[in-house]
Amino acid sequence: MPTAVEFARGEYPRFLDELKALLRIPSVSTLPEHKGDVRRAAEVLVAELKRIGMENVRLIEGSGHPLVYADWLHAAGKPTCLCYGHYDVQPPDPLDEWLTPPFEPTERNGNLFARGAVDDKGQMYMQVKALESLFKAHTGKLPLNVRVILEGEEEVGGESIAKFVREHPEQLKADFALVSDTEMFAPELPTLCVGLRGMIYTEIEARGAKNDVHSGMYGGAAPNPFVALAQIIAQLKDKDGRILIPGFYDKVQAPSKDELKAWKSLPFDEEHYRLNEVGSVQLTGEPGYSVIERTWARPTLDVHGMPGGFIGAGAKTVIPAKAVAKVSMRLVPDMTPKEAFQQYKSYVESIKPAGVELDVRLIHSGDAIVIGTDNPYIKAATKALKQVWNKDTVFIRSGGSIPIVGDFERHLKIPTVMMGFGLPDDNLHAPNEKFHLANFYRGIESIITFFEELGK
Amino acid sequence: MPTAVEFARGEYPRFLDELKALLRIPSVSTLPEHKGDVRRAAEVLVAELKRIGMENVRLIEGSGHPLVYADWLHAAGKPTCLCYGHYDVQPPDPLDEWLTPPFEPTERNGNLFARGAVDDKGQMYMQVKALESLFKAHTGKLPLNVRVILEGEEEVGGESIAKFVREHPEQLKADFALVSDTEMFAPELPTLCVGLRGMIYTEIEARGAKNDVHSGMYGGAAPNPFVALAQIIAQLKDKDGRILIPGFYDKVQAPSKDELKAWKSLPFDEEHYRLNEVGSVQLTGEPGYSVIERTWARPTLDVHGMPGGFIGAGAKTVIPAKAVAKVSMRLVPDMTPKEAFQQYKSYVESIKPAGVELDVRLIHSGDAIVIGTDNPYIKAATKALKQVWNKDTVFIRSGGSIPIVGDFERHLKIPTVMMGFGLPDDNLHAPNEKFHLANFYRGIESIITFFEELGK
Repeated sequence: MPTAVEFARGEYPRFLDELKALLRIPSVSTLPEHKGDVRRAAEVLVAELKRIGMENVRLIEGSGHPLVYADWLHAAGKPTCLCYGHYDVQPPDPLDEWLTPPFEPTERNGNLFARGAVDDKGQMYMQVKALESLFKAHTGKLPLNVRVILEGEEEVGGESIAKFVREHPEQLKADFALVSDTEMFAPELPTLCVGLRGMIYTEIEARGAKNDVHSGMYGGAAPNPFVALAQIIAQLKDKDGRILIPGFYDKVQAPSKDELKAWKSLPFDEEHYRLNEVGSVQLTGEPGYSVIERTWARPTLDVHGMPGGFIGAGAKTVIPAKAVAKVSMRLVPDMTPKEAFQQYKSYVESIKPAGVELDVRLIHSGDAIVIGTDNPYIKAATKALKQVWNKDTVFIRSGGSIPIVGDFERHLKIPTVMMGFGLPDDNLHAPNEKFHLANFYRGIESIITFFEELGK
Repeated sequence: MPTAVEFARGEYPRFLDELKALLRIPSVSTLPEHKGDVRRAAEVLVAELKRIGMENVRLIEGSGHPLVYADWLHAAGKPTCLCYGHYDVQPPDPLDEWLTPPFEPTERNGNLFARGAVDDKGQMYMQVKALESLFKAHTGKLPLNVRVILEGEEEVGGESIAKFVREHPEQLKADFALVSDTEMFAPELPTLCVGLRGMIYTEIEARGAKNDVHSGMYGGAAPNPFVALAQIIAQLKDKDGRILIPGFYDKVQAPSKDELKAWKSLPFDEEHYRLNEVGSVQLTGEPGYSVIERTWARPTLDVHGMPGGFIGAGAKTVIPAKAVAKVSMRLVPDMTPKEAFQQYKSYVESIKPAGVELDVRLIHSGDAIVIGTDNPYIKAATKALKQVWNKDTVFIRSGGSIPIVGDFERHLKIPTVMMGFGLPDDNLHAPNEKFHLANFYRGIESIITFFEELGK
């Protein structure tokens, strides 16, 4: 009888075909026209979890996209893992920058290109396929207890799962969570993520004249909402990237000396990163901090879009009645989204330019997280990764936000193992998103080995 | 036999029906999908000019939308008028703010609502109907010589007509031009516009990372083009609205003492204007100048839209690879578009934020104009207006730009009579554009009377 890893290795072509089918579903959670597609992706997962042997498989309906739940709880005396992933994806725009269509998964140079390939359908599916392999090799049983909770709103703030975790913690009772939605620090370098930045995503709406007016007739008298927003944004950060919101840095905890030392030993070259990952003429951010510190351990502020006015080709000489800036901030321990938003809102209102009215709105938020490396689940994960990858694990943080990890900590009182296999050039949230296929396969093997280690 | 004015009065219902038909054609010159509609509007005008008795009526084809030409040159010894108007219109967006559809002309409270009602189809059509009435009353003749030149690119920079005027001045030889594309200072106040601001319409494109990147992973390292544009825009004007481009004000000519005195006597209340025309909580612009001075005699700078990034509903955490700001400046005598753009471009490049590359583009431009009030055409127009409106004419300037007036001055060496009948609340370039129907009718009578005065 083959081991679980051996079983998986024999089935990779089928696993890949199944993943491609899932990636063909354009489950873009932020766009109302894709609501049916998001549900379709959930239903595919329900069917698959049932097929492999999971129990109590069901959709949990709420006001938004459904959650997918499943469990298998017959490994008496063994720990319980809560497997988490998300089946929704970011919008694919700008479409014209994709080399192949975002929802037609395409293999090139050992990579699978598609929206959601790595974030997070591919990584979520590693867990499903690890469970299938374990059932097959362990005669219909798993080496530990497992609950699965998958969501379809991660890219739009994760309200439904947050509500469910908050209101029904007993239904998700577990000893730890496994989240596969992070990346490896470098190819071939097994990585556990033990820190995440939090975030607040906001909109500032500026309103001037009651109607759009002509910039010839009214230029010099009517307030211009874009100019007002520009003046506000220019006062949110100084030219070096330091955020100017009063009190914003007060709660920021510096990383420990050990962490900083470990980060310095990581294989990271800022010039290589600038040229190959970012591709800009220069990197930006606070002076005196390395790129790793700036993206993992410092709060940052970005503008994502400025809807309003005329954005077509050519010239329309309008002073728009209103304009919006989509502004988000990444937070680090021990900042809280609530306090950060209050500080931001008060400050924006205090620098309101003359002539406009402002509406400062919180769209969604998530807590910053740091996980201790001394818990037994992190230790078992480290051991499993060593076995599969034949290398010592590096502990990193991520600049991104996975708000659910904070919810697991707060409401379920459990730590999360963030074991992910994305690569730095996987183009998350961007055109030509991909997943390195070798990482899809070894990710499955890593999860199998991790679960077998915990079941010993 | 009825006089021309009497003839017109008998035909107003038909004139209005014809105007409505013209307004139903969505001749939006900036949108490629309306190219056919723009041509259709031109063809309707060709047919109508032929029908009323004009000669040599034809389309003049170029690389853009066609010009419409017509003439009648048999009034020996009388002056020649060059009638100008434009049959293209601004885009109608935002569509959801129109009370009735922009291309379904609708009468409400004595006004005709439609895109182009006043700018400029309605005003252009006053000229056509004045000519028809004169032909009818003068037994197939006109009291003076007339050339008509109509364009379909006024809202996109007017390249074709500028080229034609520059290259074929002999084909447009005239003693003065009549442009009906301006407004009355107040209802019932006959007005001649004797000054226009010039303009430069530009785009600043800022480019950071080579691709869109995730603001979690890269926030703190990747340059943000929107933040860069905001920093630039915030340095273009100070908080009081004074433009910070070095040298920008050097050539600005202050209005004469007489002009300033006349402007002060106009019926204008800044608080009424703020409340009823602009509707903002406060007016903006340079301290120390009245609204009239700021909008007629001072250069200004506005931002019209900032394409790029994510502008949909909800949250997409992207740092876009590029973003654009559409920025225009209004110019006054003796500024020149060429020098103003050079000063602007140099300054923008000199304040380029770290990490981004910039492309500063001129989209189009027009000269600022001041016309002397002592020429015979302005005097005849004043006399005609007194007769029709029974009030003395006020001489105003306009904050808007009609670049063709500068071209007529430069290449044809003729002055322009800007006799317009728009009202300040006509919503030019905005939703619910309208034309006051009484002004459409009395505009026709004013042009008839003006031409008869010159033919005496």
